Amino acid sequence: MVINIDFGSDEAIYVQLRNQIVLGIAKEEIKNGESLPSVRQLADELGVNMHTVNKAYSMLKSEGYLTMNRQRGAVISIEFESVPHDEMYTAIRMIVAEAKCRGISVEELNRIVSDFYDRL
Amino acid sequence: MVINIDFGSDEAIYVQLRNQIVLGIAKEEIKNGESLPSVRQLADELGVNMHTVNKAYSMLKSEGYLTMNRQRGAVISIEFESVPHDEMYTAIRMIVAEAKCRGISVEELNRIVSDFYDRL
Repeated sequence: MVINIDFGSDEAIYVQLRNQIVLGIAKEEIKNGESLPSVRQLADELGVNMHTVNKAYSMLKSEGYLTMNRQRGAVISIEFESVPHDEMYTAIRMIVAEAKCRGISVEELNRIVSDFYDRL
Repeated sequence: MVINIDFGSDEAIYVQLRNQIVLGIAKEEIKNGESLPSVRQLADELGVNMHTVNKAYSMLKSEGYLTMNRQRGAVISIEFESVPHDEMYTAIRMIVAEAKCRGISVEELNRIVSDFYDRL
């Protein structure tokens, strides 16, 4: 899995890191049961603070994407049963509202969604 | 436009406020050219800090939803030509990735999107 961090972006680095890992899982570049690099290793590789990597891993843990294991570190472990979809639905609702404000029709929005889905 | 703030939510109040205004615009509860309440008035009404309202208005301004006018305060003024859709596309891409990770098919996702769109 290739992780690209844009240091010039307005988006917090831990959010970018979290997003890249979610994309990696969606693209099946990293699979259920596989370990992510250790916090130190990833921080070194990306040239970011260990705290930043920790924050991204914590976020993914609270969202149900991974578990922390004493031996194996951060392990991808998709477990959404205990994690409600509420936040995702809220995010979808906001995207739909934004698209509507921008004059994007529901057909066009569905096409954009399908395009992104196919390209994962 | 009714603005509901959930003081128990993890989501920052200025983000909730920004989201509620975007929903209000999408639902056409507030229209292009109409003024939002003054920062002081809205802060008083909602029981939040003036700084919080300012932050929400600034965010909406930078996103192209409103302009600040010396006489009329914050005026809804949809102007996306100077604001690229990149951030919205990034957000859609992330939602699609999350949905795929959660085992939601593209058909189901488009149905959810269409449902939200219809209800705006």
